Amino acid sequence: MPKPVKLESVAAAADVRAAMRAIGAEARAAARVLANVPAEAKNRALTAAADALRARAGEILAANARDLEAAHAKGLAGSFIDRLTLDPKRIEAMARGLEEVAALPDPVGRVLATFKRPNGLTIERVATPLGVVGIIYESRPNVTADAGALCLKAGDAAILRGGSDSFHSSAAIHACLVAGLKAAGLPEAAISRVPFASREAVGEMLEGLGGALDVIVPRGGRSLVERVQRDARVPVFAHLEGIVHVYVDHAADLDKAKRLLVNSKMRRTGVCGAAETLLVERAAAPKMLKPLIEALIEAGCAVRGDEAARAVDKRVSAASEADWRTEYLDAIISVKVVDGLQAAIDHIETYGSHHTDCIVTEDKAAAETFLQQVDSAIVLVNASTQFADGGEFGFGGEIGIATGRMHARGPVGVEQLCTFKYRVRGDGQTRA
Amino acid sequence: MPKPVKLESVAAAADVRAAMRAIGAEARAAARVLANVPAEAKNRALTAAADALRARAGEILAANARDLEAAHAKGLAGSFIDRLTLDPKRIEAMARGLEEVAALPDPVGRVLATFKRPNGLTIERVATPLGVVGIIYESRPNVTADAGALCLKAGDAAILRGGSDSFHSSAAIHACLVAGLKAAGLPEAAISRVPFASREAVGEMLEGLGGALDVIVPRGGRSLVERVQRDARVPVFAHLEGIVHVYVDHAADLDKAKRLLVNSKMRRTGVCGAAETLLVERAAAPKMLKPLIEALIEAGCAVRGDEAARAVDKRVSAASEADWRTEYLDAIISVKVVDGLQAAIDHIETYGSHHTDCIVTEDKAAAETFLQQVDSAIVLVNASTQFADGGEFGFGGEIGIATGRMHARGPVGVEQLCTFKYRVRGDGQTRA
Repeated sequence: MPKPVKLESVAAAADVRAAMRAIGAEARAAARVLANVPAEAKNRALTAAADALRARAGEILAANARDLEAAHAKGLAGSFIDRLTLDPKRIEAMARGLEEVAALPDPVGRVLATFKRPNGLTIERVATPLGVVGIIYESRPNVTADAGALCLKAGDAAILRGGSDSFHSSAAIHACLVAGLKAAGLPEAAISRVPFASREAVGEMLEGLGGALDVIVPRGGRSLVERVQRDARVPVFAHLEGIVHVYVDHAADLDKAKRLLVNSKMRRTGVCGAAETLLVERAAAPKMLKPLIEALIEAGCAVRGDEAARAVDKRVSAASEADWRTEYLDAIISVKVVDGLQAAIDHIETYGSHHTDCIVTEDKAAAETFLQQVDSAIVLVNASTQFADGGEFGFGGEIGIATGRMHARGPVGVEQLCTFKYRVRGDGQTRA
Repeated sequence: MPKPVKLESVAAAADVRAAMRAIGAEARAAARVLANVPAEAKNRALTAAADALRARAGEILAANARDLEAAHAKGLAGSFIDRLTLDPKRIEAMARGLEEVAALPDPVGRVLATFKRPNGLTIERVATPLGVVGIIYESRPNVTADAGALCLKAGDAAILRGGSDSFHSSAAIHACLVAGLKAAGLPEAAISRVPFASREAVGEMLEGLGGALDVIVPRGGRSLVERVQRDARVPVFAHLEGIVHVYVDHAADLDKAKRLLVNSKMRRTGVCGAAETLLVERAAAPKMLKPLIEALIEAGCAVRGDEAARAVDKRVSAASEADWRTEYLDAIISVKVVDGLQAAIDHIETYGSHHTDCIVTEDKAAAETFLQQVDSAIVLVNASTQFADGGEFGFGGEIGIATGRMHARGPVGVEQLCTFKYRVRGDGQTRA
């Protein structure tokens, strides 16, 4: 693995390109090995990596302390520092995460469909690894373990490029993953880490590393995702904003609606599955609008509403047209009264981002219509929108939540990190 | 629908842009309707369109005669003219194709997976339409019917942009599809045709029509596909070359091998599933190399080979390194002797294009290793590579053969023209 290079001259930039291409070529070779190893080898690597994380917790915390010192010196924000910070509990959670991924069924080799043709050919569609996955993420050291583990389980080689402020923490965690690979006799390049803190390395990944990268996953804020989507020359798991709606209809149970709404909005306001807009059916408004708004305000949420919402509580400020299109990622919600189910669906299709949307109702027919007609990655009935999460779906974590429509949609787990091929078995058939 | 515009001024180019954006917006609205109509309506539209094709065969042939006259006047090549030419038999085949698509099971609404979570949530992954599909194809009028039908079946709105030399033929066929949509009460914009023969309209599609296009499918020669892949700002079903191998091992049945080889190479030399390289195991060469080469030459195929191949037949010319990477699409094949199964797989992984590859053997273990380790969209045992075709797979046709790894791989049928979403049913669950 090449050493970090300082990018202070054109020569150094050329070094980065050459080194990144070499990482790509090694990952490609490793992917070919991984595609053909038994599930046990991958699982052994994951559990050995978990052991290494526990055994080397002290080293990891020391590396993290170096990153934190630099982050404090740079005056980075508290929320940033929080995501960067490791402690023994978080290291243990990472180790358990690796073990959970090891315990998942192997996604490779699943027979997805079988066709027996009239001419005697048997055709199977079978899951295979995607190939080489590049993950570009911000300074959250745990992503190093999560993303590396999910790719390995799917038989994909991973090229991890974490945020520069988590450089030492990610390196220490990555070393544990490599220890796991070695223990299982797998190629170290199965999970490689970009050893450059510079943006030039990211540029090389967006170019595809000379054809070595099959897909790029951006994990982070809007500016990162937008840069990747704009500049990537390889496919990207789109991961855009979640303008998430909770629609409460006249047949909703009010207590349930209050609990679901407050949880959807306030459990964590900074996640993409957090609710951003409450829609209330006009027929439900006389009974439910006021208590729903009060529950939000009591929970510490600022409310921006239409005329009807402002009429029931003077603490509600006026919502503008822009509010219906805003992902606040904060303790703010927009509230609107709509004429009925179709008006709610129309609002969601017009202003939403096709991420996650929920109906609260005891009316089964309304629920089914909502499930059918709302064209979002995740559509829920009577459940918090904050379940929009690969772990909660039973995927053993996720590499992101895809908002595109191609290949993956919603939480991207090991199954979506696979592709497929066709196996055709004949006994001499020729085509007429 | 806007009328064709001559692109002789900047103002006209702006007209094309505006008209293309309008087509995109109407297709998007139609897609939302299509996503929620019953299967019967889509099938009724397809069978009514088949009826219209038959009833209007005279008009279609007259339109085709206009295109053919212009093509002859331009001095276009015979193979081009052949693909452009319609006759009553080809029109009947198009009509039957629509009926076959109508008879397929509905791909929308299939429950692809169900997870029951410990907290009581039920999560379903269910197939939904992809959205709006743009198809850019060369002057093959039948693609108008095939592509429109497959998209409609998948609940997708289609925007068809056929080659300018098939302008009148495609328009006449498209009118039949519209008649079918009307008969079923479906929006006409469900299948729209780009009414501009200019390249500017293609440029607008590659830009995504203001966010209206979800995916572009290029169908045609290498230059078209390369332009689309280079310039598209939306996802593309990659459809690159097929450097297709037939590997004959020592346990092959020689007669079967000869038949499979000649069919794989010579049935039609211009299709992407046509064999381009023959690999023969060294242990099989003494018995099989000469008869295999003779069978090819007798069938009219030029043979370029390595030293071993040249030694058995003096009509074999020398293959260069470039031959192993060449898709001839012609009556030419390259022949190489390899040391064994792993050497064959290494050759295919090094020089192939991950499209379609075949082993001829009676050795079950060798066959399974080949099926496992060759990383191509279609891997066959003892069957002609020319089965690489959606119709032959039972897909009722195909919109192309994808050589990328994302979303679709191999023949793209109605299932691959779908995406999915998650339906989550709860009874008040909140996230801790």
